[in-house]
Amino acid sequence: MADKTAVKSALRAQRIETPSWGYANSGTRFKVFGQPGVPRTPEEKIADAATVHRFTGVAPSVALHIPWDQVADFGALARYARDLGVEIGAINTNVFQDEDYKLGSVTNPDPAIRRKATDHLLEAIGIMDATGSRDLKLWFSDGLNYPGQDDLRDRQDRLAEALREAYDRLGDGRRMLLEYKLFEPAFYATDIPDWGTAYAHCVELGPKATVCIDTGHHAPGTNIEFIVAFLLRAGKLGAFDFNSRFYADDDLMAGAADPFQLFRIMYEIVRGDGLGESSGIRFMLDQCHNIERKIPATIRSVMNVQEATAKALLVDRDALRAAQREGNVLEANAVLMDAYNTDVRPLLAEVRAEAGLDENPVAAYHRSGYQQKIEAERVGGRQAGWGA
Amino acid sequence: MADKTAVKSALRAQRIETPSWGYANSGTRFKVFGQPGVPRTPEEKIADAATVHRFTGVAPSVALHIPWDQVADFGALARYARDLGVEIGAINTNVFQDEDYKLGSVTNPDPAIRRKATDHLLEAIGIMDATGSRDLKLWFSDGLNYPGQDDLRDRQDRLAEALREAYDRLGDGRRMLLEYKLFEPAFYATDIPDWGTAYAHCVELGPKATVCIDTGHHAPGTNIEFIVAFLLRAGKLGAFDFNSRFYADDDLMAGAADPFQLFRIMYEIVRGDGLGESSGIRFMLDQCHNIERKIPATIRSVMNVQEATAKALLVDRDALRAAQREGNVLEANAVLMDAYNTDVRPLLAEVRAEAGLDENPVAAYHRSGYQQKIEAERVGGRQAGWGA
Amino acid sequence: MADKTAVKSALRAQRIETPSWGYANSGTRFKVFGQPGVPRTPEEKIADAATVHRFTGVAPSVALHIPWDQVADFGALARYARDLGVEIGAINTNVFQDEDYKLGSVTNPDPAIRRKATDHLLEAIGIMDATGSRDLKLWFSDGLNYPGQDDLRDRQDRLAEALREAYDRLGDGRRMLLEYKLFEPAFYATDIPDWGTAYAHCVELGPKATVCIDTGHHAPGTNIEFIVAFLLRAGKLGAFDFNSRFYADDDLMAGAADPFQLFRIMYEIVRGDGLGESSGIRFMLDQCHNIERKIPATIRSVMNVQEATAKALLVDRDALRAAQREGNVLEANAVLMDAYNTDVRPLLAEVRAEAGLDENPVAAYHRSGYQQKIEAERVGGRQAGWGA
Amino acid sequence: MADKTAVKSALRAQRIETPSWGYANSGTRFKVFGQPGVPRTPEEKIADAATVHRFTGVAPSVALHIPWDQVADFGALARYARDLGVEIGAINTNVFQDEDYKLGSVTNPDPAIRRKATDHLLEAIGIMDATGSRDLKLWFSDGLNYPGQDDLRDRQDRLAEALREAYDRLGDGRRMLLEYKLFEPAFYATDIPDWGTAYAHCVELGPKATVCIDTGHHAPGTNIEFIVAFLLRAGKLGAFDFNSRFYADDDLMAGAADPFQLFRIMYEIVRGDGLGESSGIRFMLDQCHNIERKIPATIRSVMNVQEATAKALLVDRDALRAAQREGNVLEANAVLMDAYNTDVRPLLAEVRAEAGLDENPVAAYHRSGYQQKIEAERVGGRQAGWGA
Repeated sequence: MADKTAVKSALRAQRIETPSWGYANSGTRFKVFGQPGVPRTPEEKIADAATVHRFTGVAPSVALHIPWDQVADFGALARYARDLGVEIGAINTNVFQDEDYKLGSVTNPDPAIRRKATDHLLEAIGIMDATGSRDLKLWFSDGLNYPGQDDLRDRQDRLAEALREAYDRLGDGRRMLLEYKLFEPAFYATDIPDWGTAYAHCVELGPKATVCIDTGHHAPGTNIEFIVAFLLRAGKLGAFDFNSRFYADDDLMAGAADPFQLFRIMYEIVRGDGLGESSGIRFMLDQCHNIERKIPATIRSVMNVQEATAKALLVDRDALRAAQREGNVLEANAVLMDAYNTDVRPLLAEVRAEAGLDENPVAAYHRSGYQQKIEAERVGGRQAGWGA
Repeated sequence: MADKTAVKSALRAQRIETPSWGYANSGTRFKVFGQPGVPRTPEEKIADAATVHRFTGVAPSVALHIPWDQVADFGALARYARDLGVEIGAINTNVFQDEDYKLGSVTNPDPAIRRKATDHLLEAIGIMDATGSRDLKLWFSDGLNYPGQDDLRDRQDRLAEALREAYDRLGDGRRMLLEYKLFEPAFYATDIPDWGTAYAHCVELGPKATVCIDTGHHAPGTNIEFIVAFLLRAGKLGAFDFNSRFYADDDLMAGAADPFQLFRIMYEIVRGDGLGESSGIRFMLDQCHNIERKIPATIRSVMNVQEATAKALLVDRDALRAAQREGNVLEANAVLMDAYNTDVRPLLAEVRAEAGLDENPVAAYHRSGYQQKIEAERVGGRQAGWGA
Repeated sequence: MADKTAVKSALRAQRIETPSWGYANSGTRFKVFGQPGVPRTPEEKIADAATVHRFTGVAPSVALHIPWDQVADFGALARYARDLGVEIGAINTNVFQDEDYKLGSVTNPDPAIRRKATDHLLEAIGIMDATGSRDLKLWFSDGLNYPGQDDLRDRQDRLAEALREAYDRLGDGRRMLLEYKLFEPAFYATDIPDWGTAYAHCVELGPKATVCIDTGHHAPGTNIEFIVAFLLRAGKLGAFDFNSRFYADDDLMAGAADPFQLFRIMYEIVRGDGLGESSGIRFMLDQCHNIERKIPATIRSVMNVQEATAKALLVDRDALRAAQREGNVLEANAVLMDAYNTDVRPLLAEVRAEAGLDENPVAAYHRSGYQQKIEAERVGGRQAGWGA
Repeated sequence: MADKTAVKSALRAQRIETPSWGYANSGTRFKVFGQPGVPRTPEEKIADAATVHRFTGVAPSVALHIPWDQVADFGALARYARDLGVEIGAINTNVFQDEDYKLGSVTNPDPAIRRKATDHLLEAIGIMDATGSRDLKLWFSDGLNYPGQDDLRDRQDRLAEALREAYDRLGDGRRMLLEYKLFEPAFYATDIPDWGTAYAHCVELGPKATVCIDTGHHAPGTNIEFIVAFLLRAGKLGAFDFNSRFYADDDLMAGAADPFQLFRIMYEIVRGDGLGESSGIRFMLDQCHNIERKIPATIRSVMNVQEATAKALLVDRDALRAAQREGNVLEANAVLMDAYNTDVRPLLAEVRAEAGLDENPVAAYHRSGYQQKIEAERVGGRQAGWGA
């Protein structure tokens, strides 16, 4: 049986990063529904992230997206964040919203556009230096809508070239997180469609490059925890973008669509020693709260990840190993399910209480008046959109 | 062997409707890339549709989307269209872009919002009277993002109630086309997710209600031509929204992703006597030309549907029936493939030439100067967007 | 909050039917791995089913598959079952394993084969009379491997004709359960591929015909609980074949792949008053225990269904309804998840103890010596196979 | 425009390998339907393969499956094949049909079973030496049916160990082809589920190890031609197992389900210089002719691959490149489609006639009397089954 003290200690040490854009308005191609109180500036996004950390205690960093979070003085922004109790997390690049990028960014057939896109990556590396951020996170929307539109292989060459240039500019202790995605916005072929492509480029680049798994970016039926286990074994798992989906890249709250899958993912993390800070793996949320209030949805997502982690930590690994070794299929499965079926909410309430937090972060948030405050104060100006 | 004269006659009689919104800007949630020359008014959209008809000869009607195509005088708009050589086709309702519709339109838990949405359906019926349009086309984005968000069954009751009210208001010779969609923008449950749901409601409503098949709205692996055959047999196939997809509702040009599938669909249409006007089936395009020029893309799509139809008409149905009856799997498949593998472009060139059209509509369009003209003239004003 | 006494009462009254073929050997097209102790006769299968009932208390009937379970005297078989404490449940027809059925059974292009297949359905109705079974369960493997192989629409006509003949022969109080399946063994088109097809035929047939949902028979991404809610509303939900899957029709233990989905299904059952005997809905398992011991796997599956049911019963429906009505997405979802996240194993242990059962049916089975007994006794003879 | 002489020359040089097991009976888990004339020995399978080559002229090798094709003297078998005009192609290992392999072969938790499985790989390498076969083809059914059943990561270690041992035993000029598969027969996790996993192991092993793409082994929506382009660029594409599917691993005739996809795959092959013998890529069929006659189905499949190849060769690559470079989406797509829409059957008839073959291989086969001959002669004995 897992040791309760060790479990609680691991839960206390867990770190989940929230994304600045998760506090902004978002939607589908059909409609973006705005919400009252949504931030208008990077500072207001950071304030919301700090609020999530205040109530959960495990979300001490916030990822930025450039140029959505462009400011004149990133050093000042980092100090602002620190004053509110959070750090700047991964720097995310955006090379998909300029008119120039209609046919691609770093893989565009036009060398001038490739140059522009690569320069943006280098700019983001500069922001890492200014903010102290460790990780450059790269997601490319590059791809094709129609067969024949461009040459699949040439685009790999161009991709490799841009990644190399950015990689070589990374400072000491800095890392590159390379994300993949099956489709959307490209509808025929995406230039990094799967973990294999990201992995191959990362191996070619070197030890600072690792793969980022967005849990919503896979083909139907993909076994995500297998990828987790494989990349951990290969030393190439760099980060997660957690969210959940029923169909495509739905970007729902983590744990909302298939909590058992999230548990299996976290079990592979625990089993592969990926949970602690020393693993270097960054656990991020990447979600779109299209119809639900953003801050409590983020808190709920953090809690869902915590609950999956707690269950993963509770797996009786000795019993599991024994059943596996003797080929006892039903018993091995039962050991795993025993942990999954446990109600870990009391345990997490304990962990929170011991850390001086409210046992129920969502309720505490609602009582705090923060939502009313931002709805009253954040009037006028331009609300940040997920796409802007 | 299919009779060439009859094939050509059927091809000449074919009618494909283009959508007003297909000429407007469109995109994904990540970005809408604008294009020069895109229409700014319903009239300009109709002019583009008339242009497609001028070069293809088989696209004599244009579907409207309300309120995207709202005008003060719909009678005048219909006359304007007729003067350009096209008719107003299906009237599409839009109950997904008001703030009120965040949690649904006709299935919203709030009765006042349901009332508003139903009133919009009735308004569209009024527009049918004003324009002479036969068909009310209904697509609802209604659905849920999270389990528990609302009651699945109550929403069916509300849906049935709104459909009934609209149905009962349909004039003589008018029809309701009910569309279904697996997901998007709702990410957990959609209130009309599949043909079965649309069919059941249509049966309950009565003979004026039929199902509209959007070829991009199915779960992976769905056999669309089966649905076509089934609905034809049941007398409940009302219309198509043609487009193509590799993944989800990609809305690419018809025939671009899986031309063999389009052929199989058209074969079931031919086999079930669904091609001619007497069948009452409306063949529409519903596409988003996110990165390609909209008018030539529409022309290409019309041609792709024509080519699939020509191949379907060329199937040697006597030989096919004989092989099927004797259980000769390879021969039956070979008969079908023989038609599919035929290059029908020369045949269609003949049909066009005989109708006084250029044999190559895309080239003729490019030579016509229309694109240059609209790019020069349509400056200023607000370009129409797919979502606006 | 759900009333605990009512919840326990509902759990005590729950009935889950196990399939005779679930105790037999099964496998994939690659290999059937035999297991010691597997039954060799219908009687031995029934004995295993009675054993599952003995330890779970909620599995008092066993479904038969004809001709796998063919015996000379079905009345005697029913008495044998009753003596062991179980009833004969649904009679399943098998029209897919004769050489004749290579190209279909009731939809075969050859009328003589259709006659033979329909006669088998009538034979099964006779067995219902002999055994007292209420339900005729029909699954057809009929379909096509290649486009063109046969006429999709003719096959619907043939299907309707055979179903009509069988339906008209059903005695008073008898029912027909019509199952659908996306694919396998047919790889291009299946004659009843989805719930819509089954539903349409059932409506045409009349009130005795209802749809059977096999949880493994859907396209990826299908929302099964929506189908449950829809069919319940229409009065056309007749039965479940429970099992679970990650990919296709994997036939794993119910609740093993996506326990949250099973909970959502059971919630719709509870919400739609489908749980009790009066609903007439039959809850069956239909699984293949290819690598795990069959009896404890069946017990575990029964327990998984019970746990999902217990959670569904625990949903605070007043709170849920309130949150839904006010459009509080997060709260409505939280109410549902609160029930799902509850550990219901202690509650079910109580229910079992109160019924005089061991709190842990799997452990009790292992202690009982039954497995050792059948492994010792069932030597020689021919083990029953899932396919034989 | 592609040069016709060069196109014909490339088509004449094309080589497609047929599998010995494609001539044997096969089926689904529900039923294997036997066919008259099916081979009973490895020699008879080779005779059928030689017949396919005789009529197509491009199928001069036959893949073996061990132990299905076990013989006492493999040297004699190779001579027998050569006498009939064909060579022994890839040697396929079978480590999935012994009782021992129920929980895995090279990844089994039991070291003795791993030893046995690895020894089988070494045995196959011996058969390569005896037959002169260049390629060892490895497909493992290894995987898990239930979460927790075994340790995902340990299994990768075991896999790597077995592959290393086999790899190190490969003689000069020998190669290892490593196949991947999403699922089936394992239903929760497969130990080599995707190309990324196969690729990573091949890179680790060394230059003799390359990836084999079975076109039916992917998740829905996977862009196979992307994988082709990627592996070609990385020098790690070793072979194809061609077949087609609508749903899962349906193993239908190549080109039957999505001929446009097969064309796109062959285009990437042509574009990446993968067609000729010098590329070392082996183009194999791997199909199950469950309901159709096996030899003509194999001939048809070979022809389908030829037709896709001819279309790929006809792509006007200069025009394509020009359109791609200028970002002309519609034109680039049109250039590709222009080749696809061409009827290449006359061209292939010419190629065949020039090679002294009948222009219509299927018709020639039917006229030849071979089918009647084998049906008359191959009576008695035990027909070979796909699974035996």
